[in-house]
Amino acid sequence: MPRPRTIADYLDAMVAGDRATLARAITLVESSSRADRDLALELVEACLPLSGNSIRVGITGAPGAGKSTLIQALGAHILSHPAQTLAVLAIDPSSELTGGSILADKTRMAALASSDRAFIRPSPSRGFPGGVSEHTREAILLCEAAGFRNILVETVGVGQSETGVHGVVDFLVLLALTGAGDELQGIKRGIMEFAHLVAINKADGDNIARAETARLEAQHALHFFPPSNSGWTPRAVAVSALTGRGIADLWSAVLDYASSTRETGIFHRNRSEQNRRAMHALFDRGLRRLFLNQPDLHRRMSILEQAVLEGRITPARAAASLLDAWSSSGTIVSSFPK
Amino acid sequence: MPRPRTIADYLDAMVAGDRATLARAITLVESSSRADRDLALELVEACLPLSGNSIRVGITGAPGAGKSTLIQALGAHILSHPAQTLAVLAIDPSSELTGGSILADKTRMAALASSDRAFIRPSPSRGFPGGVSEHTREAILLCEAAGFRNILVETVGVGQSETGVHGVVDFLVLLALTGAGDELQGIKRGIMEFAHLVAINKADGDNIARAETARLEAQHALHFFPPSNSGWTPRAVAVSALTGRGIADLWSAVLDYASSTRETGIFHRNRSEQNRRAMHALFDRGLRRLFLNQPDLHRRMSILEQAVLEGRITPARAAASLLDAWSSSGTIVSSFPK
Repeated sequence: MPRPRTIADYLDAMVAGDRATLARAITLVESSSRADRDLALELVEACLPLSGNSIRVGITGAPGAGKSTLIQALGAHILSHPAQTLAVLAIDPSSELTGGSILADKTRMAALASSDRAFIRPSPSRGFPGGVSEHTREAILLCEAAGFRNILVETVGVGQSETGVHGVVDFLVLLALTGAGDELQGIKRGIMEFAHLVAINKADGDNIARAETARLEAQHALHFFPPSNSGWTPRAVAVSALTGRGIADLWSAVLDYASSTRETGIFHRNRSEQNRRAMHALFDRGLRRLFLNQPDLHRRMSILEQAVLEGRITPARAAASLLDAWSSSGTIVSSFPK
Repeated sequence: MPRPRTIADYLDAMVAGDRATLARAITLVESSSRADRDLALELVEACLPLSGNSIRVGITGAPGAGKSTLIQALGAHILSHPAQTLAVLAIDPSSELTGGSILADKTRMAALASSDRAFIRPSPSRGFPGGVSEHTREAILLCEAAGFRNILVETVGVGQSETGVHGVVDFLVLLALTGAGDELQGIKRGIMEFAHLVAINKADGDNIARAETARLEAQHALHFFPPSNSGWTPRAVAVSALTGRGIADLWSAVLDYASSTRETGIFHRNRSEQNRRAMHALFDRGLRRLFLNQPDLHRRMSILEQAVLEGRITPARAAASLLDAWSSSGTIVSSFPK
């Protein structure tokens, strides 16, 4: 297949099921080159009318929690329905690779990768907080336009950032392990309140009893959180990729959530709100970048930050001083009312 | 006492213990007039070398949780040590009052207000998320400069905002009530992970047993949260302003926290980090305000936001379009590298 050159080239091949083109399209949205970025924005926009018809599920958990093997088992379960399709976007914080990461495809989730109804895509996280970037949101849209109906986003996940994984998925699974006692390990601060389901992994062999105890405790703790606006009560499930335990329960929970929130309209409303927040976050980040692109202002910010950290000036004074510097740095003053 | 006119006037009177001047100084930092703001920035800066020597405690909880009566009891406990002084900053979300709110002083916390070692200051929240504004941080510094060693900040509190109450205090108390069963009421989503202590209020009369059960449950649930970087394990205490139950325990927890984190340096580091974050948040807000001050751009943002909400354009495109509009709106282009 020739290398796609126009938006139509990309779109036609993607819709026709050409996964190499989908992979290239994702590489395009992940590119940091200015020219690629313009094309990427257009491509994602062209995909927009074809997107949205999926369930987007985040699988988050500390390194070693067993995310990849769980996704392997969960993917097999999803694909056991012959009409289902699955895309896995695995955000890899340790890698700074770009491109297709063919090697990673082959070594991780090999069984899934062999299905013609599955698409596996590892991506570097490029240091974005939460392990998820705006590119992940765009990659999801591309996968949906290419016909994938179930999207799993695998990430280590970090706390409360607006740009965290919970900002791009419909349903968030938090994967944890039992510790030395029955306490849970691998839960990062701030993520638990966003989880729709806590999965206690490696509930097999000698570990079953401990995992079941931890599940009960987690279920109990989850009741302590105030209900979310979706009306969904978070669940706790003990799972094992080895024996398949809990995998079907986990996926039923996802389907239950999707059907109940689709009925109330919350499913769609959450996505709209995610988009609205993303727009504002991207705009704020862009404004800040315009500012920091000016070396003088960048230096000034570092100096003021240090003064604030040392308690020599107040945050309000530092911010005011930066804004004054911005206003007087260029020719911008004239265009703003005082 | 004459109305203070210079920074020195303010400072001299505040340090001499004149509470009317402290109240005026807080009114000054809360003012939205440009001239007042300049004076306020200077005043707070002048207070900076005199500030910091206090424990700052946030008391958050839903309306009706009994924050004011708890603070009354807690304040009496603190002031029972003859060397202690106490300032209470009560952020009132329902009120849009400005100024001294003498009436509120008299009706709420009357017993505290009568002590010459206490200062009570109700302030309107002016719709800031979290019920706390940058002005609260500044008011704390003013109170410290005026010699108050214990600062209580009372607020309804709302979730995860960077500008939430946990961004201005050292220790956060979450006040809750038992519900119909033993579940807790009045806990807002997102706040529990920031709480250093959960206080179950109204643990008196017929309610003692239920409150004790709820306390045990809360203590258990708190263990589910990953430990914070301070190494502090959050506590749960059943309290009653009526009988005094748990009040001393609550305050010992605050003192334990302060002494252990002062030893490790975390106490001071947290404050520095709060200030650094506040600087960036204020700067971002200021940049955004510069943008929205231009009516054309403000309108454009509303239109694009609607398009994003309706799924007609992507968040990335909307943000890019706003940033382009900004760059081409005025004369700013020339001052930024492409």
